[in-house]
Amino acid sequence: MADAYAQPLDGDPAARVLVAGASGFTGALAARIVWSHPRLELIAITSRGDAGKPLDALYPRYRVPLELTELDLDRIEGVDAAIVAYPHGAAAPTVAALRAAGVLVVDLSADFRLRDRATYERWYGEHGAPDLFGEAVYGLTELYREELRTARLVATPGCYPTASVLALAPLAEKGLVEEAYVAAMQGTSGYGRSSDDSVHFSAMTENAFPYKTEGHRHRPEIEQELAALGSPAPVTFVPHLLPLDQGELATCFARLAEPLAKEWVQALYRERYADEPFVRVLDGPPNLRAVRDTNECHVYVTVEERGRVMAFSAIDNIWKGASGQGVQNLNLMLGLDETEGLR
Amino acid sequence: MADAYAQPLDGDPAARVLVAGASGFTGALAARIVWSHPRLELIAITSRGDAGKPLDALYPRYRVPLELTELDLDRIEGVDAAIVAYPHGAAAPTVAALRAAGVLVVDLSADFRLRDRATYERWYGEHGAPDLFGEAVYGLTELYREELRTARLVATPGCYPTASVLALAPLAEKGLVEEAYVAAMQGTSGYGRSSDDSVHFSAMTENAFPYKTEGHRHRPEIEQELAALGSPAPVTFVPHLLPLDQGELATCFARLAEPLAKEWVQALYRERYADEPFVRVLDGPPNLRAVRDTNECHVYVTVEERGRVMAFSAIDNIWKGASGQGVQNLNLMLGLDETEGLR
Amino acid sequence: MADAYAQPLDGDPAARVLVAGASGFTGALAARIVWSHPRLELIAITSRGDAGKPLDALYPRYRVPLELTELDLDRIEGVDAAIVAYPHGAAAPTVAALRAAGVLVVDLSADFRLRDRATYERWYGEHGAPDLFGEAVYGLTELYREELRTARLVATPGCYPTASVLALAPLAEKGLVEEAYVAAMQGTSGYGRSSDDSVHFSAMTENAFPYKTEGHRHRPEIEQELAALGSPAPVTFVPHLLPLDQGELATCFARLAEPLAKEWVQALYRERYADEPFVRVLDGPPNLRAVRDTNECHVYVTVEERGRVMAFSAIDNIWKGASGQGVQNLNLMLGLDETEGLR
Amino acid sequence: MADAYAQPLDGDPAARVLVAGASGFTGALAARIVWSHPRLELIAITSRGDAGKPLDALYPRYRVPLELTELDLDRIEGVDAAIVAYPHGAAAPTVAALRAAGVLVVDLSADFRLRDRATYERWYGEHGAPDLFGEAVYGLTELYREELRTARLVATPGCYPTASVLALAPLAEKGLVEEAYVAAMQGTSGYGRSSDDSVHFSAMTENAFPYKTEGHRHRPEIEQELAALGSPAPVTFVPHLLPLDQGELATCFARLAEPLAKEWVQALYRERYADEPFVRVLDGPPNLRAVRDTNECHVYVTVEERGRVMAFSAIDNIWKGASGQGVQNLNLMLGLDETEGLR
Repeated sequence: MADAYAQPLDGDPAARVLVAGASGFTGALAARIVWSHPRLELIAITSRGDAGKPLDALYPRYRVPLELTELDLDRIEGVDAAIVAYPHGAAAPTVAALRAAGVLVVDLSADFRLRDRATYERWYGEHGAPDLFGEAVYGLTELYREELRTARLVATPGCYPTASVLALAPLAEKGLVEEAYVAAMQGTSGYGRSSDDSVHFSAMTENAFPYKTEGHRHRPEIEQELAALGSPAPVTFVPHLLPLDQGELATCFARLAEPLAKEWVQALYRERYADEPFVRVLDGPPNLRAVRDTNECHVYVTVEERGRVMAFSAIDNIWKGASGQGVQNLNLMLGLDETEGLR
Repeated sequence: MADAYAQPLDGDPAARVLVAGASGFTGALAARIVWSHPRLELIAITSRGDAGKPLDALYPRYRVPLELTELDLDRIEGVDAAIVAYPHGAAAPTVAALRAAGVLVVDLSADFRLRDRATYERWYGEHGAPDLFGEAVYGLTELYREELRTARLVATPGCYPTASVLALAPLAEKGLVEEAYVAAMQGTSGYGRSSDDSVHFSAMTENAFPYKTEGHRHRPEIEQELAALGSPAPVTFVPHLLPLDQGELATCFARLAEPLAKEWVQALYRERYADEPFVRVLDGPPNLRAVRDTNECHVYVTVEERGRVMAFSAIDNIWKGASGQGVQNLNLMLGLDETEGLR
Repeated sequence: MADAYAQPLDGDPAARVLVAGASGFTGALAARIVWSHPRLELIAITSRGDAGKPLDALYPRYRVPLELTELDLDRIEGVDAAIVAYPHGAAAPTVAALRAAGVLVVDLSADFRLRDRATYERWYGEHGAPDLFGEAVYGLTELYREELRTARLVATPGCYPTASVLALAPLAEKGLVEEAYVAAMQGTSGYGRSSDDSVHFSAMTENAFPYKTEGHRHRPEIEQELAALGSPAPVTFVPHLLPLDQGELATCFARLAEPLAKEWVQALYRERYADEPFVRVLDGPPNLRAVRDTNECHVYVTVEERGRVMAFSAIDNIWKGASGQGVQNLNLMLGLDETEGLR
Repeated sequence: MADAYAQPLDGDPAARVLVAGASGFTGALAARIVWSHPRLELIAITSRGDAGKPLDALYPRYRVPLELTELDLDRIEGVDAAIVAYPHGAAAPTVAALRAAGVLVVDLSADFRLRDRATYERWYGEHGAPDLFGEAVYGLTELYREELRTARLVATPGCYPTASVLALAPLAEKGLVEEAYVAAMQGTSGYGRSSDDSVHFSAMTENAFPYKTEGHRHRPEIEQELAALGSPAPVTFVPHLLPLDQGELATCFARLAEPLAKEWVQALYRERYADEPFVRVLDGPPNLRAVRDTNECHVYVTVEERGRVMAFSAIDNIWKGASGQGVQNLNLMLGLDETEGLR
């Protein structure tokens, strides 16, 4: 095959980008998005375990012919921005080193998402870069767009908070949410590449189950953001694993401070998201196929006859739930149109 | 292949059984269970659209070599019991005719599940056999076992009520459930054989979605049963379709009248179901593979730190959610061990 | 969501394009490719059964907001080119009418693929536009590129012939193939949208099977093309349906006129396809995920120790096996780069 | 749940059975079949890596509450028979030790399948119990039934040889097969429990691919058996992995010594398998759903117009392709009906 997928840069790149941890599901996708981005140049992709392999060998469908290398923090001159796709806990020290070298950082891990130190320690343990704790802008683009334009460090939200908070935000912003119950569901790409028995095809096909029923780390993150919007509501949250690859649904039940008409609530949602490039308010329930391999979030809200709200959202967990939103934010940090490279 | 699957009857059959509507998913399974049941004789299987075909041609895995015929209500002498697997609305007149002929009936449709006529009419329209309305015993075996032993007409519960009510019953019986939110999920066998575009493999693979978000007929049934148990709680209910064949999860959030300790609640569940042959209380969340092709219901309950209960149940929607429970009840009606033919 | 997916035309369009039969799987994809094509303008999409619906309602992931209309052959002024995605037999009269009106036609049906009239009639019955029979260029781009540049009517090959012939062409061109055995496998999108029971998710999950074992219409097409290349070999062909949506594998066994070294054969393939923009010769067996949603064909060839050749190819059956290749050919007919709009 | 699944032994057991290697897919199924077998008593299940866990924790759907222990060859008094489900190479020494202790052995590995030592060493390396090499009866029940009745050591065939040889045996026995091409396809349970990236659900869903294209160890086994039947034909063989759990198809093309009528060949197959309890000759192509979780092999044969034979077979790769056939043979070794415990 002829040299089919050379990078189609439009003029000088806006930034030379490193993706650290590019052999996992989200890192590989981040590399692929940057690779085909018209304004970004992908200059290095790193991996500890898979250094020496071309990314193409691990993810042929992404068509990124670069070779994975070991990250060497002493040799990052020329790097303008980095997307860090490390496991929670492992990310913080690398993020700190990159920031110290003046590199813009989009962190896909949980290390900088929470704003309360005690909450972080309860759910994740000791923090790996305490000086930077609290310094990141929370990268839920639709809520923090202005702050993101000047951010140097962005904490990309968890996939479940992205889906859940976007489903509830229009009501939360009005201070209306009294309490919420969220049943979220996700495909196996959310489980990560380092598989255990649970995600063997033979175990997962024709199967589905709730997990982390005694408490999931994304719950305090959802509560943090609903409170920041104006609704400090308790959230009861449980995730489920589904037999599919990419995709995430959040089914959110909310009890409101006062009963509201369905038409009023639906109009509120349409208005709130009218100008959002990646949020689509639907006239009926969303589905996963419509958002797969996209950075979109599809939302539907309804109110049942006795006043409980049901708000639904669908995203691709590794796009809008991780790497796609990461690049959306990087675009803002660089002064680019936030949709560049994401359609 | 030699004559491998002749029916292994133990002595005289306890009943000669007709399955009406045996070409659909639940009717076919009912035929297969009766066919291999040691105390029942399957004497006829009927279908309007597929009369003349052997069931084996439609469902080879069930290995029932009988031919489907048209139901002729004038020629049902010799039939002791019937399982009726007709669509809602269509079942009632046939059920009435069978009852008039003295046949014991297990109805798998919704026609006799609700006890309030107005509620029935709101959700299903006019009733097809008003004289029989209210005459059926509700076939959630674990709740109505004694009544079922003398029942002549049993209304098999919907699959969602079976899963949801079994998940909440131990608390509901104590009058503790103040309100409940149920996110239920089901495979495509619950959608029925007469497929539309939604369940084409190409549409459903890698997909999942909520449906009937503006109100599902199983909600009043769940509320009816929780109230009958002692907890007249409002239930907010939404079903989801998953990319798998057989299986159903009910994830139930409940707000209680008073906060209860997790240990107390878990002990309550273990005790309540200790002697149930088909309900297994687990030490962690259930999964669908463990119940597929069985009549079991797996239940797990937990209480999160701020007192909300999460109760989970998993069933096979066409077994415990329909035909398996139907035969479980028929066993009781005939004075047999309720587990006969179901293991 | 803001107006996100307006068509990004680069200057004046090279052609205004009609897609006829746009509610089926291949027609809808053709519409989506034309819609996002930088040099084509999609001016109408038609459907008999779904006229009046926006394509978006049927295929939300394609994001084509146009409304389906009934095709009116009296009102096609302004149409420069048409892609016809009708069933076999139904296509010919419409193709003839469009050609009579001077419209360039890419036909996705089988109506103009075969060059021998008797063979056509044996497999498909009477032809619907006998005057045009034999007038089309066969649209296997890699074999007929020059003829395609001046074609007015192109018969897009079947998906199985595309995969099988590309797998065998380098050897067939040398006159080396004595006989071939092809086991081909395809996902359910190849079965078409008008589903029957076979492609209900509940029937297809955890299933796979050969079909059309007594003769499939694509076999004479494969033989026609191998003969045209120089190897008039008998082909034994059988297709299989797999539990996946998009994707097709052709596993081809070939007996050669003389034994050849594996290295020689592999070098032949690499050289033959070196300049092809959409054919990639791999160093090991292909897989379907690497070609899904692309117009690529991945090929691998090996020779086992006793001289039999095994040649494998993987395509996306609705892209390179239908609509993608259709647009690839339309690009050539219009003097555009053949890769435009296909990456 | 009450004590639901106690072992329903009919009188004294015919043998007390050990399953060694019971934490893998085939070992676990062997344990489950023995556990519910009316004439066998499962007295121990062993595993190196999972000793201490109940099998129920790993495979809840099998409902075998026994605990896995480490195999101690010094303490196997009381064991009458063993099913050994170890990896190739690792099995031979354990098999030898068990035989030395007088235990009947059904080996599921490849260690005793081949009868030619050089061929074994070429494909598997040095043999771990050379004194026993050649001492086993090959456990393809339908071909070696009489020898199996008196066997002390049985080598259960590979799943691909089981499917392929049963598909071709009626012709091979007549010395008619000149050469064969086999495209076989299997679900991920054939890949084993110790998953690598290839069988992560995210890698396998919507995927399929040929593998071991440069030579698969089952090929010499297929050739050995066709030759033993009377047709020393070269076989070109390639396996494929499919996105499903249990199931295997063999699509076999055969060139015959002389052209034969389809009717004659189909009658030959029907007659050959007329009395076989687990082989069903179909009137059309087989499918995997019809054999899943059964010990059956479904066969269909046809002859295309130019005389090539296409023979198809479908089995469940871990039942008839491994553990089911293992128990079928153990039944024969013990003088039981070969179908006991397998329906």
